[in-house]
Amino acid sequence: MAVANTVAWRRRHLVTMEDLFREEIELILDTAPQFLAVQKRESGIKKVPLLQGRLVVNLFLEPSTRTRISFELAAKRLSADTLTITTSGSSAVKGESLHDTLANIEAMHSDIVVIRSRFAGAPAILTHRHTSRIINAGDGSHEHPTQALLDAFTIRQHVRAQRDDPGAGLDGLRVAIIGDIAHSRVARSNIWCLTKLGASVVVCGPRTLLPPKIERMGVDVTSDLREAMKGADVVYALRIQLERQAQSLFPSLREYIRLFRVDSESLKVAPENALVMHPGPINRDIELAADVADGPRSVILEQVSNGVAIRMAIMHLLANSGPEE
Amino acid sequence: MAVANTVAWRRRHLVTMEDLFREEIELILDTAPQFLAVQKRESGIKKVPLLQGRLVVNLFLEPSTRTRISFELAAKRLSADTLTITTSGSSAVKGESLHDTLANIEAMHSDIVVIRSRFAGAPAILTHRHTSRIINAGDGSHEHPTQALLDAFTIRQHVRAQRDDPGAGLDGLRVAIIGDIAHSRVARSNIWCLTKLGASVVVCGPRTLLPPKIERMGVDVTSDLREAMKGADVVYALRIQLERQAQSLFPSLREYIRLFRVDSESLKVAPENALVMHPGPINRDIELAADVADGPRSVILEQVSNGVAIRMAIMHLLANSGPEE
Amino acid sequence: MAVANTVAWRRRHLVTMEDLFREEIELILDTAPQFLAVQKRESGIKKVPLLQGRLVVNLFLEPSTRTRISFELAAKRLSADTLTITTSGSSAVKGESLHDTLANIEAMHSDIVVIRSRFAGAPAILTHRHTSRIINAGDGSHEHPTQALLDAFTIRQHVRAQRDDPGAGLDGLRVAIIGDIAHSRVARSNIWCLTKLGASVVVCGPRTLLPPKIERMGVDVTSDLREAMKGADVVYALRIQLERQAQSLFPSLREYIRLFRVDSESLKVAPENALVMHPGPINRDIELAADVADGPRSVILEQVSNGVAIRMAIMHLLANSGPEE
Repeated sequence: MAVANTVAWRRRHLVTMEDLFREEIELILDTAPQFLAVQKRESGIKKVPLLQGRLVVNLFLEPSTRTRISFELAAKRLSADTLTITTSGSSAVKGESLHDTLANIEAMHSDIVVIRSRFAGAPAILTHRHTSRIINAGDGSHEHPTQALLDAFTIRQHVRAQRDDPGAGLDGLRVAIIGDIAHSRVARSNIWCLTKLGASVVVCGPRTLLPPKIERMGVDVTSDLREAMKGADVVYALRIQLERQAQSLFPSLREYIRLFRVDSESLKVAPENALVMHPGPINRDIELAADVADGPRSVILEQVSNGVAIRMAIMHLLANSGPEE
Repeated sequence: MAVANTVAWRRRHLVTMEDLFREEIELILDTAPQFLAVQKRESGIKKVPLLQGRLVVNLFLEPSTRTRISFELAAKRLSADTLTITTSGSSAVKGESLHDTLANIEAMHSDIVVIRSRFAGAPAILTHRHTSRIINAGDGSHEHPTQALLDAFTIRQHVRAQRDDPGAGLDGLRVAIIGDIAHSRVARSNIWCLTKLGASVVVCGPRTLLPPKIERMGVDVTSDLREAMKGADVVYALRIQLERQAQSLFPSLREYIRLFRVDSESLKVAPENALVMHPGPINRDIELAADVADGPRSVILEQVSNGVAIRMAIMHLLANSGPEE
Repeated sequence: MAVANTVAWRRRHLVTMEDLFREEIELILDTAPQFLAVQKRESGIKKVPLLQGRLVVNLFLEPSTRTRISFELAAKRLSADTLTITTSGSSAVKGESLHDTLANIEAMHSDIVVIRSRFAGAPAILTHRHTSRIINAGDGSHEHPTQALLDAFTIRQHVRAQRDDPGAGLDGLRVAIIGDIAHSRVARSNIWCLTKLGASVVVCGPRTLLPPKIERMGVDVTSDLREAMKGADVVYALRIQLERQAQSLFPSLREYIRLFRVDSESLKVAPENALVMHPGPINRDIELAADVADGPRSVILEQVSNGVAIRMAIMHLLANSGPEE
């Protein structure tokens, strides 16, 4: 690792970015590069035995492919055994509570449980009664902390390369997050993470999709895409949940595209080396133009690649943390 | 192991409790503790290589989470390779017979096939034509032998601890099984197992949910919950299949709860140290009060934990048995 | 291996039989026996470490059990890590393109991606933009190359045994393929494969299920089952897609059975030692009589067993091929 970190990791769970201190975030980011090297097989090593014989359970109560396989792969590259439980075919259909489901998983001696749930706060509540390490893989519209961490890692990677400074951080950067801010756990976790790391954040979307009092999170707010992009080092397009349209939360798709799509036209106001990011999966040519998604500014696939390394780092840190004080 | 057992295991399959001799049941129970120690990592060992390179196929043709993952984990902790086939997305949808499905699995050189099916007797029929070791993971309303074995193991554990006698068995114990006896494979397998081990069983439920001539299985029968609980060393609540109500098999949920729920009130007639058991998943506050399920008498999560060890023991015994005489 | 092969394998992908040269087909067939020995544990070896630490992703966008588990097992017996993605619960439901799905999988550093898709040509198109080794596990009505290879391997095995000649090939053999030729990727891949290996092929089915100008593929065509079977060394019955009947592509099931079913009656015109094959799953007593499927001429379960070995051979060859020229 390039940077020695003087903080020791003490947490047993990772459920929100709101909870984390800057030093903890940086410790995770500093731990990831060694795992990225494993994933890329830079030294011929394809797996590490750090979690050999441990059991990682992926409890995905909402459909998901990429986040689920990212966690599964992270666990496998740490040599853990993995079990994946998805909603279909699970006891959840029999009306069992999430507490009971987790109690049963733990009775089989799980070490880490990764949970995706449509209920905001579910992972946090579970930490109070259970002994497994819990990682929040997305809880309703609340948080998606591992996404924010992989995003921050990706930004830092590029800043360090651009400035040729291996110690550079996110201080002073400006990040524009565009889209349905109100319903986005990705936006919330990123706002917490980026501001703690010293970046400034501007959120931009239709008024109906901006949560009231969002300024209290310490961000700038606008419904003018060009204003948001001006001076942005990072342009982060959120995925539009097309089903929101049925709820009349925005007038029409055509209108949304006209006003908020990140494309080569709207990007003209952003600095030339601004990064374009997206949490995936992309609605091509809706919130993000296809040519931009595949273009030189886009770091979207690096986000995916870094995601596995960040999740390996988190599992490694949690598995080796002592009991919380 | 505390007890040397003079019986050698000879069976290739585990399909019913009705078939097993007392000595065989005891051999399984005596084999489990060493695997429980692995599961609990008592000596730092997390896996054993006993089934390394062997293939365990989980063929689950009915939805199930906990039984499926218990078998999956058991196989993984024995270092076997595992394949899981569930109904959705399987050739079963293309109308292939179970015989053909199993023949195809065997053509790929499976060693052990764990089958859950809604057809009573399906696993037994399959043993006649196939060469894999077959374990019945529940067949219709017929049997669920591994559940009965883990239940007997859990009871024996507690009896031995209570009496401080490492050789104690179930002889003379009284077990009350409460609920929908007629449709419960758990009840049937437990009746066979417990009576063979020398325990006496009383079954209790609404008359419409008691199978005719159940006395012939050697059990007492009553529809009076308090009568059933009187003198019971174990109170075993079955899961109510809520869909039975639509079939008018019992008058109303409120009525069921009033007459048959295991709760702190009804438990007053049972001995103070009676164990409370349930096969899961629990309908909280329907067949079992939530505070009792989570209370000091409940050994429900121990059942789950023991289930993995019992299944490891069974797989180990079957995999090493010679051809049946 | 019995036969030294002077061709080196250079391809990175296996997407069609149409593309392959005879020498390449023979190289795959010559590579399979060593893996068949592993699968059958002939020398006590149950797995080989050839793909240790590599990642094989099974991307099955159509329901399938047997092909999917055959690939999964092949990967596991090569010691690869495996990830399986099926349609249900995948981002495909969120409308992501196949290109994006694959780009994301690759960003997590996959080595081999096995794809089943309902779109003819999809695997081929993907090879143009992606870096993983791609194996076509069936694309619409187009091709199913690994099925054709395992079929050719099975035929060759029997020819070599029958003639007691370890160098015998398929030259001069006659293969009758019976059923819905028009919609069968199995038929298409087999026609390419068998004719390249020097066999002659006759296809037979109702006129409505014979593709126009099929003769151009170098096969004989007939709607007379007995004519097709006369002199056939192999009788290959295709699975009838029962849903075609609703599309009025054949008059009635009874009519189909009367005219095209492979059974002991119709087989009388075939040579006595003709092999009976089927890609599975069988509609028993529809396209193939149950007693024939289970009879001495049938090599259907050998096809299944050989399938794992062929897929191990293909993965091994692809994983070790250099960049394509």
